[in-house]
Amino acid sequence: MSNEKISLEHGAGGKAMMNLIKDIFLEEIEKGKELGEVGLSDLDDGAALKIGNENIIFTTDSHTIQPIFFPGGDIGRLAVAGTVNDMAVMGGKPLAMSAAVVMSEGFPTESLGKVVRSMNGTADEAGVSLVTGDTKVMDKGSLDDIIVTTTGIGIAKKPISDHGLNPGDKIVVTGNIGNHETSIISEREGIDVESPIESDVAPIWKTIEAGLEVGGITAMKDPTRGGVSGVLNEIADKSNVGIVLFEDKFPVSKSVNGICEMLGIDPLNLTNEGIAIIGVEADKGNDVLEAIRNTKYGKNAEIIGEAVEEDNGKVMLKTAIGGRRLVRANVGAPTPRIC
Amino acid sequence: MSNEKISLEHGAGGKAMMNLIKDIFLEEIEKGKELGEVGLSDLDDGAALKIGNENIIFTTDSHTIQPIFFPGGDIGRLAVAGTVNDMAVMGGKPLAMSAAVVMSEGFPTESLGKVVRSMNGTADEAGVSLVTGDTKVMDKGSLDDIIVTTTGIGIAKKPISDHGLNPGDKIVVTGNIGNHETSIISEREGIDVESPIESDVAPIWKTIEAGLEVGGITAMKDPTRGGVSGVLNEIADKSNVGIVLFEDKFPVSKSVNGICEMLGIDPLNLTNEGIAIIGVEADKGNDVLEAIRNTKYGKNAEIIGEAVEEDNGKVMLKTAIGGRRLVRANVGAPTPRIC
Repeated sequence: MSNEKISLEHGAGGKAMMNLIKDIFLEEIEKGKELGEVGLSDLDDGAALKIGNENIIFTTDSHTIQPIFFPGGDIGRLAVAGTVNDMAVMGGKPLAMSAAVVMSEGFPTESLGKVVRSMNGTADEAGVSLVTGDTKVMDKGSLDDIIVTTTGIGIAKKPISDHGLNPGDKIVVTGNIGNHETSIISEREGIDVESPIESDVAPIWKTIEAGLEVGGITAMKDPTRGGVSGVLNEIADKSNVGIVLFEDKFPVSKSVNGICEMLGIDPLNLTNEGIAIIGVEADKGNDVLEAIRNTKYGKNAEIIGEAVEEDNGKVMLKTAIGGRRLVRANVGAPTPRIC
Repeated sequence: MSNEKISLEHGAGGKAMMNLIKDIFLEEIEKGKELGEVGLSDLDDGAALKIGNENIIFTTDSHTIQPIFFPGGDIGRLAVAGTVNDMAVMGGKPLAMSAAVVMSEGFPTESLGKVVRSMNGTADEAGVSLVTGDTKVMDKGSLDDIIVTTTGIGIAKKPISDHGLNPGDKIVVTGNIGNHETSIISEREGIDVESPIESDVAPIWKTIEAGLEVGGITAMKDPTRGGVSGVLNEIADKSNVGIVLFEDKFPVSKSVNGICEMLGIDPLNLTNEGIAIIGVEADKGNDVLEAIRNTKYGKNAEIIGEAVEEDNGKVMLKTAIGGRRLVRANVGAPTPRIC
C-alpha cells in the first residue's frame, strides 16, 4: 500500500483500520515477543503481561474527540473511562494510569483545568490513580484544541480475551446502545430532540467486576469505534463461532432510536463509551445479568444473543418480526473524531 | 490563571511548563494516591509503583517533532528511545511498551511504514517489546502529520529518583551535549555546516545499566527539553544541594559548538535525546565513568561537575578561564516541536 494515503476510515475502528494495522504494524513489528497471554498480534483491547506472579493488563488510547465538551462528558472523562474500560474488558482491575496531553498554542488554560478536573473525578470513581504524565504544546495551525493519550496498568486474576466464546454462551450487553455517538452527532448538527441525549461515557470497572465475581465469563470487549456490530463480528471471527442476536432484546432508548431512524443509521454500528459486550457460559448467564444490573452503569443490561455452532465467524440478527439478516462490521464508522 | 491561554513555552520543559503542571495538574489531581516510591507530585521522569514484589517504572511521552524524518533519526526512533530512556533514568530495565499513533488524513502510508519499522528497530535494540497500541485519524486541517505517544513499563531493582544527590557526588554526562536540537535547527533552517550534525537519539538503557551495575548512583535524569541546565537545576533544587560544573569537561562536538556560537545559544540549554545526567557517590565516580565509556552510546562520557553543600539548589559554572557564573534553567526552550 506504498502509494496510499491515510484516510479517516483508517481510524474508524472498522475493517479499514484492522487492515492497516495488519499490513503495517504487524508486518513491521517482530513477532514472538509476547510477554504473557495476550500480545500485539492478538489485536485485543490491550496486552496481558506476566510480571512476577501478577497478570498485568496494559492498554493505551489517544483521544481526539470534537467537541471536547459534549452532553454527558468531556475529553477528560472520556480519556480516563476509555482506558479504564479497555482494562476492565480484559479482566483488569484498574491500578494506575498515565496521561499525555498535547495542546494547541492558545488553548484556554481554564478549559485545561476543567479537563484535568474531570479526569481526576473519573479516576476517583474508577479507583485508579493518575501517577505520571506529559505535556506538549504545538503551534497554532498544527493542531486544534487538545489530544489526551491515556495508558493504564491493571491487575487481572485471569485475563479475559476477545476470542474465548463457545457455542451456547450467552451475550450480555451492560447498558443502552448508541448514546455516545448520537449525543455527539446531535450536538454537532444541532439536532433538536425531545429529551436531549447524553453520552454514556463512564468508567465501568465496577459493573464488569460484578460480572467477574459471578464467573463463567468467556469473552469481553467494549463496543467503542466499530460499535456492537464490529465487536461481535470480531469476537465471532476470533472465537470461531457464530452469534445470533435477538433484535427485540436490544436496550436502545427512545431518543436514540428516534435519531437513528431520522438519519438512517443502525444503532449497532454506533460508538459507545460506557458499555461492554460479555460472553458468559449459558448456565451463568442470568446470574451475571442480575449482578450487572445491580451496579450503577448496569441497570439496562440485557442478554441480547447467544453463540452458536453454525454460521462460523458470522453474526446473524433475528428480527422482531421473525426475519434473519447478516450483521456486518463497518468498513469505517460514519462519524470522525468520535473518541 | 483562568484567563490565560496556553503558549509554546508551556510545552518547552522549562519553568513555564513546571508552573502549569503545578497550577493545574497537581492542583486538580488528588494527592495521597501514590502507589510506590515515586508518584505524580514528584514530577520525576515517570512513576515507580510497587506491584507484588516488583518495582514497576511507568512513564509516558507524546512526540510531536517536526520534521518527522531528521538527520540521525525519525519520530519512531525518538518515540521509542524517549520512553526507554525515561524508564532507564529511573533505574528501570525496559520490558514492554505501548504506542498510540494519531495521524492526519492524507498522511502517506509509506511514511507510516517507515516510522513503524524504525520503532521496531529501536525497540529491538533496547530489548523492549511493543505489545499494544492505538490508531486514530484526524481530518486534514486539525493536525499535521503524526503524533506518537509511547508509554513504557520497566522493572527496577531499586528505583532511582532525581532528588537523591548528596554533596560530594560526581556528575557524569553519558555523551556529547547538544546534538539533537542543533541537528533539528540545522535541518529546519538549512544551515550549512562542514560536517553535518546528526541527532543523538538512541535508547540508552544498556549504557545506564552498565553504570547501575557498578553502583553508587544517587540521581539520574535525561536532559531532553530544558537541556542539561534545566535538568541540573531540577536535581539541585529537589536534592537540596548545589552543583558546580567544570566548563572544560563538557563533551561538545566541534560542529555543535560552531552552530551554538553562530546562533548565540548555550549548549547547556539544548534538548538531547540520547544522553543521561548521572549523580554518583564520589568513590564510585571513575568506575561508573569507565563502565559507561565501554558501552555503545557512552564513549564520550565525562565527569562534568560535582555536588556541593554551598549554593543550595543552584548550579554554578566554573569557566575554563577561572570565572564563575550561575547556570539558570530556561523559562522555555527556544525551539518548538523539538521532541
